[in-house]
Amino acid sequence: MGYDLVTFGEAMIRLSPPHFQRLEQTTSLDVQVGGAELNVAVAAQRLGLETAYVTRLTANPLGRMIANKAREQGVDTSHVLWTQEDRVGLYFTEFGASPRPNSVLYDRRDAATAHIQPGMVDWKTVFTSARWFHTSGITPALSASAAATTREAVKAAKAAGLKVSIDLNYRARLWSQDQARAVMTDLMKDTDVLITTEEDTERVFGITGKDYDEVARALAARFGLEAVVITLRETPSVWRNTWGAIALAGGEIHRGPVFDLELVDRVGAGDSFAGGFLFGYLKEGPGMAVRYGVAVSALKQTNPGDLCWATPDEVERTLKGGSLRIVR
Amino acid sequence: MGYDLVTFGEAMIRLSPPHFQRLEQTTSLDVQVGGAELNVAVAAQRLGLETAYVTRLTANPLGRMIANKAREQGVDTSHVLWTQEDRVGLYFTEFGASPRPNSVLYDRRDAATAHIQPGMVDWKTVFTSARWFHTSGITPALSASAAATTREAVKAAKAAGLKVSIDLNYRARLWSQDQARAVMTDLMKDTDVLITTEEDTERVFGITGKDYDEVARALAARFGLEAVVITLRETPSVWRNTWGAIALAGGEIHRGPVFDLELVDRVGAGDSFAGGFLFGYLKEGPGMAVRYGVAVSALKQTNPGDLCWATPDEVERTLKGGSLRIVR
Amino acid sequence: MGYDLVTFGEAMIRLSPPHFQRLEQTTSLDVQVGGAELNVAVAAQRLGLETAYVTRLTANPLGRMIANKAREQGVDTSHVLWTQEDRVGLYFTEFGASPRPNSVLYDRRDAATAHIQPGMVDWKTVFTSARWFHTSGITPALSASAAATTREAVKAAKAAGLKVSIDLNYRARLWSQDQARAVMTDLMKDTDVLITTEEDTERVFGITGKDYDEVARALAARFGLEAVVITLRETPSVWRNTWGAIALAGGEIHRGPVFDLELVDRVGAGDSFAGGFLFGYLKEGPGMAVRYGVAVSALKQTNPGDLCWATPDEVERTLKGGSLRIVR
Amino acid sequence: MGYDLVTFGEAMIRLSPPHFQRLEQTTSLDVQVGGAELNVAVAAQRLGLETAYVTRLTANPLGRMIANKAREQGVDTSHVLWTQEDRVGLYFTEFGASPRPNSVLYDRRDAATAHIQPGMVDWKTVFTSARWFHTSGITPALSASAAATTREAVKAAKAAGLKVSIDLNYRARLWSQDQARAVMTDLMKDTDVLITTEEDTERVFGITGKDYDEVARALAARFGLEAVVITLRETPSVWRNTWGAIALAGGEIHRGPVFDLELVDRVGAGDSFAGGFLFGYLKEGPGMAVRYGVAVSALKQTNPGDLCWATPDEVERTLKGGSLRIVR
Amino acid sequence: MGYDLVTFGEAMIRLSPPHFQRLEQTTSLDVQVGGAELNVAVAAQRLGLETAYVTRLTANPLGRMIANKAREQGVDTSHVLWTQEDRVGLYFTEFGASPRPNSVLYDRRDAATAHIQPGMVDWKTVFTSARWFHTSGITPALSASAAATTREAVKAAKAAGLKVSIDLNYRARLWSQDQARAVMTDLMKDTDVLITTEEDTERVFGITGKDYDEVARALAARFGLEAVVITLRETPSVWRNTWGAIALAGGEIHRGPVFDLELVDRVGAGDSFAGGFLFGYLKEGPGMAVRYGVAVSALKQTNPGDLCWATPDEVERTLKGGSLRIVR
Amino acid sequence: MGYDLVTFGEAMIRLSPPHFQRLEQTTSLDVQVGGAELNVAVAAQRLGLETAYVTRLTANPLGRMIANKAREQGVDTSHVLWTQEDRVGLYFTEFGASPRPNSVLYDRRDAATAHIQPGMVDWKTVFTSARWFHTSGITPALSASAAATTREAVKAAKAAGLKVSIDLNYRARLWSQDQARAVMTDLMKDTDVLITTEEDTERVFGITGKDYDEVARALAARFGLEAVVITLRETPSVWRNTWGAIALAGGEIHRGPVFDLELVDRVGAGDSFAGGFLFGYLKEGPGMAVRYGVAVSALKQTNPGDLCWATPDEVERTLKGGSLRIVR
Repeated sequence: MGYDLVTFGEAMIRLSPPHFQRLEQTTSLDVQVGGAELNVAVAAQRLGLETAYVTRLTANPLGRMIANKAREQGVDTSHVLWTQEDRVGLYFTEFGASPRPNSVLYDRRDAATAHIQPGMVDWKTVFTSARWFHTSGITPALSASAAATTREAVKAAKAAGLKVSIDLNYRARLWSQDQARAVMTDLMKDTDVLITTEEDTERVFGITGKDYDEVARALAARFGLEAVVITLRETPSVWRNTWGAIALAGGEIHRGPVFDLELVDRVGAGDSFAGGFLFGYLKEGPGMAVRYGVAVSALKQTNPGDLCWATPDEVERTLKGGSLRIVR
Repeated sequence: MGYDLVTFGEAMIRLSPPHFQRLEQTTSLDVQVGGAELNVAVAAQRLGLETAYVTRLTANPLGRMIANKAREQGVDTSHVLWTQEDRVGLYFTEFGASPRPNSVLYDRRDAATAHIQPGMVDWKTVFTSARWFHTSGITPALSASAAATTREAVKAAKAAGLKVSIDLNYRARLWSQDQARAVMTDLMKDTDVLITTEEDTERVFGITGKDYDEVARALAARFGLEAVVITLRETPSVWRNTWGAIALAGGEIHRGPVFDLELVDRVGAGDSFAGGFLFGYLKEGPGMAVRYGVAVSALKQTNPGDLCWATPDEVERTLKGGSLRIVR
Repeated sequence: MGYDLVTFGEAMIRLSPPHFQRLEQTTSLDVQVGGAELNVAVAAQRLGLETAYVTRLTANPLGRMIANKAREQGVDTSHVLWTQEDRVGLYFTEFGASPRPNSVLYDRRDAATAHIQPGMVDWKTVFTSARWFHTSGITPALSASAAATTREAVKAAKAAGLKVSIDLNYRARLWSQDQARAVMTDLMKDTDVLITTEEDTERVFGITGKDYDEVARALAARFGLEAVVITLRETPSVWRNTWGAIALAGGEIHRGPVFDLELVDRVGAGDSFAGGFLFGYLKEGPGMAVRYGVAVSALKQTNPGDLCWATPDEVERTLKGGSLRIVR
Repeated sequence: MGYDLVTFGEAMIRLSPPHFQRLEQTTSLDVQVGGAELNVAVAAQRLGLETAYVTRLTANPLGRMIANKAREQGVDTSHVLWTQEDRVGLYFTEFGASPRPNSVLYDRRDAATAHIQPGMVDWKTVFTSARWFHTSGITPALSASAAATTREAVKAAKAAGLKVSIDLNYRARLWSQDQARAVMTDLMKDTDVLITTEEDTERVFGITGKDYDEVARALAARFGLEAVVITLRETPSVWRNTWGAIALAGGEIHRGPVFDLELVDRVGAGDSFAGGFLFGYLKEGPGMAVRYGVAVSALKQTNPGDLCWATPDEVERTLKGGSLRIVR
Repeated sequence: MGYDLVTFGEAMIRLSPPHFQRLEQTTSLDVQVGGAELNVAVAAQRLGLETAYVTRLTANPLGRMIANKAREQGVDTSHVLWTQEDRVGLYFTEFGASPRPNSVLYDRRDAATAHIQPGMVDWKTVFTSARWFHTSGITPALSASAAATTREAVKAAKAAGLKVSIDLNYRARLWSQDQARAVMTDLMKDTDVLITTEEDTERVFGITGKDYDEVARALAARFGLEAVVITLRETPSVWRNTWGAIALAGGEIHRGPVFDLELVDRVGAGDSFAGGFLFGYLKEGPGMAVRYGVAVSALKQTNPGDLCWATPDEVERTLKGGSLRIVR
Repeated sequence: MGYDLVTFGEAMIRLSPPHFQRLEQTTSLDVQVGGAELNVAVAAQRLGLETAYVTRLTANPLGRMIANKAREQGVDTSHVLWTQEDRVGLYFTEFGASPRPNSVLYDRRDAATAHIQPGMVDWKTVFTSARWFHTSGITPALSASAAATTREAVKAAKAAGLKVSIDLNYRARLWSQDQARAVMTDLMKDTDVLITTEEDTERVFGITGKDYDEVARALAARFGLEAVVITLRETPSVWRNTWGAIALAGGEIHRGPVFDLELVDRVGAGDSFAGGFLFGYLKEGPGMAVRYGVAVSALKQTNPGDLCWATPDEVERTLKGGSLRIVR
């Protein structure tokens, strides 16, 4: 009974001032956990996949909290590496209001995942009977050893017969565009599905196009990808966005719905999208995948925290264009 | 010195996760009380009527809290029935954001009001010198004995010379459309004023029309009602609605104002409308009634909780189309 | 790779007014989960056993929260029965101060676990490769069908070669002393280890003695038990108690340490004791069991909630009589 | 159906920093209402008397909150005077810990009650069918006009056949000992029952004695009082006190129980004592009065806020010396 | 090393119910400090000016909190006058939602600043080496002695060679339009820069115009001002406004940007504008001044409290029309 | 007008779970700032010294918060070094209850103060007209460069004619006893006043004695100190301690009072002691110094946070053995 989906990356403790306060002025912080690949696993697990999350954590209350919250959502943490050394990464989020955007202050240096080394994870065991491996462009950006471990993981996944998806997720604070291009281009060789945005595609791969479809086709062509997914966000204001996605698979563009969002917490939206997409992709193929991805991540953006708390029923109702009146 | 208005129904403890959290993720719940007929009494009392609220409550801290909060607002609770048995009903509300609507999870089974029996309330005493009786379609839906007690109350009210209003308030979780039609049709015989929505009218009575006016006229005609009131809500998003109402009385349609609402808490809006309408109806007639009803319930939707906290001055200012700048 | 420990019983949502407020006066409730057998599993899991928790839950946000919080602590919930019917039980706790004791108001009627039926749980699968089964006197008190299911579980556990422990846990609100005596006496036939208090022993079995040792010996003799454990609490004030336990096993009395407690939350103390006792019993025998049981439950009473959050290291430090100065 | 008890005085909004914070450092304040005579009415009402509270309030949200909270507890507020002028008094409480005592910062100057004038209250109507009138030494200390109105009230009460009780409650911030002595001595002429402490007795009347009994006898003798009550507090630490009282009536000393208290909020203890005493005195006489007074005020000190939230059942259980274990 | 800017006026403790609650219903209040001239100093200090704030405060925890919060932001408080008398003013703010506007309830009577007298402040020392003095129309409205002290300050500032700016800030609760006109007209003689709104200009000076430019030119002409600034707000709803400003200086109209605002807290917006304007004016002249003023006050309206918490970097980014996506 | 006291060391953001929660279970963290030498400066400033605090901080919201909170209390921060690099240190405190002690989890690695280098601070300017320099054994323990900078500071202080005090403050997580002994012995050459505990004295210097006096005399003799101060804590439980101190100066032992403490927050007690001691020492000499030190730090332990919020008046009242009744 293996995993439908294994994800790998760093998760952190997330600290947020309540009620739109600035970090500098707050006297309390709401505590949550988040991390791109953890967020993906949670969204996929809630929809129905069996998932496992691989990371490296310091064995203290903060590290345990991260594993606890993964398990709370049903994500398997039995392959997490525990260490007495290093620290648990943190990030601070501020909720904005036009014209002040949301912001994130990272304090992740020297965290245990950045110090992961090839050989630490027994990928062969992790991938036994597993179907899919997912990581993001953040993981190799953490450190040289994390990049090497990411490569090791991707190679092991392919060797074990898994499909591999990567969310490009470029983080300018972690590495330069040149560094990202070199590493991500290499990883693309073993990647089946790429999830990205138009902006990150340009920054990392220098690929642009007259529209999203063209960008997707260019990516698929350059890297020989099975599917390319682009999420689409418009931000007329901080509190109201529109949100959608397209997927290119089998030469065909699949378009998801577009939702008008009232944003409670947009952090982690792309990750929930990926989780929903992979659920749909494994269950029904790219058309349903992009629909599930958009709907579950639209719902995620209506609850506080990086993690998705929507249910499959709610996703279905949202996809059917349910009323905005009270559900009793 | 009797009551201007007596209302009868079930009130519950309301528990809501703060800050748009999902119920499944919350670690605290805001506590309030609410119930359709209690909410009506509170709105009417705040505007200036002398009101009493009749219900049946278990004598524990939760039951006392319900009576306390009614009295806090000036509503008379001296006719509440207290029992050592049964339980106090609860409901859980989640605050949504587009595309996730608000939702309510009821846990009201076996609560004391559902176990009320005809003969328990001394209606004759309650109605001494009273002017108006109000209940809603929720009360008879609670149980067969609650339906019988509702009929008993309506008959007693008419016998004592009171006017009777009913808010149709169809709750699909409590009974079928067929059950509702049978009971509500029967109650209509003794009803003077019906408050409803277009949707509930169709579901319970199968009445539709090309516009609200036609629906109101059809209802008035079928049941020989003195007045029919229809509240109107449009929900372009979860956080922004428009809100209005019309009243048919004496063959004439009275149109209330329409407000653009920024919604803090829309639960109980229709009940505050009813309270405001009855205040206006008793004080000045249907034209003012529909204006007071819309304004007081528009204000209600800007404060947390089912209960209205607006003042008569604020209702007047709102009706005059007051500025949205700071009131100092 | 089976379970070291399987527990079975009801868990509920626990709602508590903050800051010593009375339930009647509060405007918010802290939300936690608890239930005797869940609490046992959590304490044992934190110390190092592999545990599973069996219960029946309504598939709504409240039911999911209970399973979530079990998994958060590492307890397996794959055998939980999910239903669309019934409700999730609740209880309300008030924190006292001398001369007002802590109090609990239960609202557990008609919850899903009370409606469990023999045959619903596939005990044979649950108990494959498992070592120990634990339940309490609360579970059979919930309803006749719950009592029958408890008997079924105990029989199945013995048939599968597991040891069985029961915490007597008499609840006067749920059944009479006569009812409890009949059912619990029957369950004792298949019980290996009984955990109880002097007071419950007298109320349920009518057994008294000149001291705890004598009570333990009388219980062991009457029911042919492998071990009898009695927890000891003295309550000079609401905020300060002393806490200890003895265990009779192999004819020998093992005495745990006695701790002076400053109480943050004493609810669930006996359950954490049982979890710690079973951990120690399975790892090292009765002498260590009673020491682990007392220490882990002493620590539990210093954190809010029914569930234990202590670590094995903290238990060791506490048993060594660690300083009460700041640990840096 | 008149009032068992009418009280008269000033109530204020009470603002307290949470969690033992100093006022200077806090970022939020818990909001409650309190005032000596309101607190008395609430305690008496909760135990079973029909009470009314007379005061003068500014008609703004803060003034309404005071009346709301009185009504929430069942106290009649129909005789409250409302004004558009003046302000609502405030006080700030800090919760201490040894060696820092609790403290109160008053901001009550120019509040509406201090500006009350003789003739404003229609005492004759208020006292129709009433049995007892109560005020405290704080009310006449507010202003000359408040002192005159207090005299007016006491005279009217006696004229209407009511018994009069006064809690001496000396407040050094409001007036000097000489001022207090003159006014209070005059009020004693119409007083039937005096409630006081040894310390206030010495400060206001210069009366001391070798023990409490002697002080009580001296007071009764000097002013010809029907009963004299002295509350007794010992403060070995800020969080733990002992609490008791004696009453002299009919020449006999009645001693209440003495409770070891763990203090959640001691503000208003004496007022709840007075409410409990008057309930017991009217129901059963001085022996029971002192017992009820001590028990209800002991319980009051275990909940936040000036107001008592205990129930008659809890008072009975406390008087019976109930266990400090969990009440389930 | 003198001050770039000295401001003078009253600051108060600000108490706000959280989460859009009405003041009448709240059980807690968020505590902040605010006051027009304090707010100006804070905004200017955060952007880079050296500022001092002059006021008169009662030496209690509330008064200290006001000075603390000024110092926290870097504003010099060494010239604050401390007194054992009087009280600290308070104001209560309610956050609205359409159609209910935000509102403020002042409780500032008899506060220490209203009792300030000419001669109390040693202006000569304060103004040594200082560059600019700022106050608002609120300060002279507090009392006759405050008006006299304001005149004294303005005269002293001019004598010491400072420039003087005044924000017209008409408060109808404090004085009549006639009173304001007399005092403000007199102050204009020594004023270099006037900051106002179209509405206040009409109410205080009876000046109107076909557009903002004309009003500015009329003001400059009548009072011989170096610069006139008018802030512009449109309020289509309570949660969304537009915000901008123009400045007339040297005969030229300088137009700031116009921002669409999502409002977290609009109280103090004009004050932050003034602080930003004065920073820009002193650093770069009127063109940059109006841009800084609008941007910093737009950002202020996105954080809770009267005080600005924006940084110079954020102001620059906002002026460049930064994206509304997450800043990582 | 120089500083009475300059302190130098690291301050951090302090994050604490509310209500005795374990860090692993919390969903919010209270935010404060603290650091040994900052805490000293704050206590001294509140009592009346003019103080400055020197540290190195990353220029982000967390770093600004530290400087803000120093300034809020009146401490000068004009000599703080700001950097765009490194990070702001954090620490997490858990509040315990017997038998679980309070605990602190540090996350201070690579914070800006640890990376301070000799030459970065212009000590000569800092110490112009200053009277006293204080640091603790934590500062040199942070890193080799911090130790070198501490030596530099001490030398510069002596060169500028300041007295130097050091709080021994041994932190086993930061360095070994051998490392500490070498560095601290060297620093003692330029130290005038040493503040320590019996336990740290033994760990760092290997000095023991039959009583505190003997330890103090041994320290004074070995290092030629002007004064040696030893704080004394007994911890019968986590919530109740006793607290006192002795000072040896001029060959004479000065004994402070001993207080029974009810502990709200004991972190930073020793630092407040040092601040109070230095105030008293500079104002009146060692006898008063030890009294002020004990009293102000006893009061500190009754408010949340590392920082002292007591006033001089409160310290005086406490020293006079004030009543534990309510201060009104």
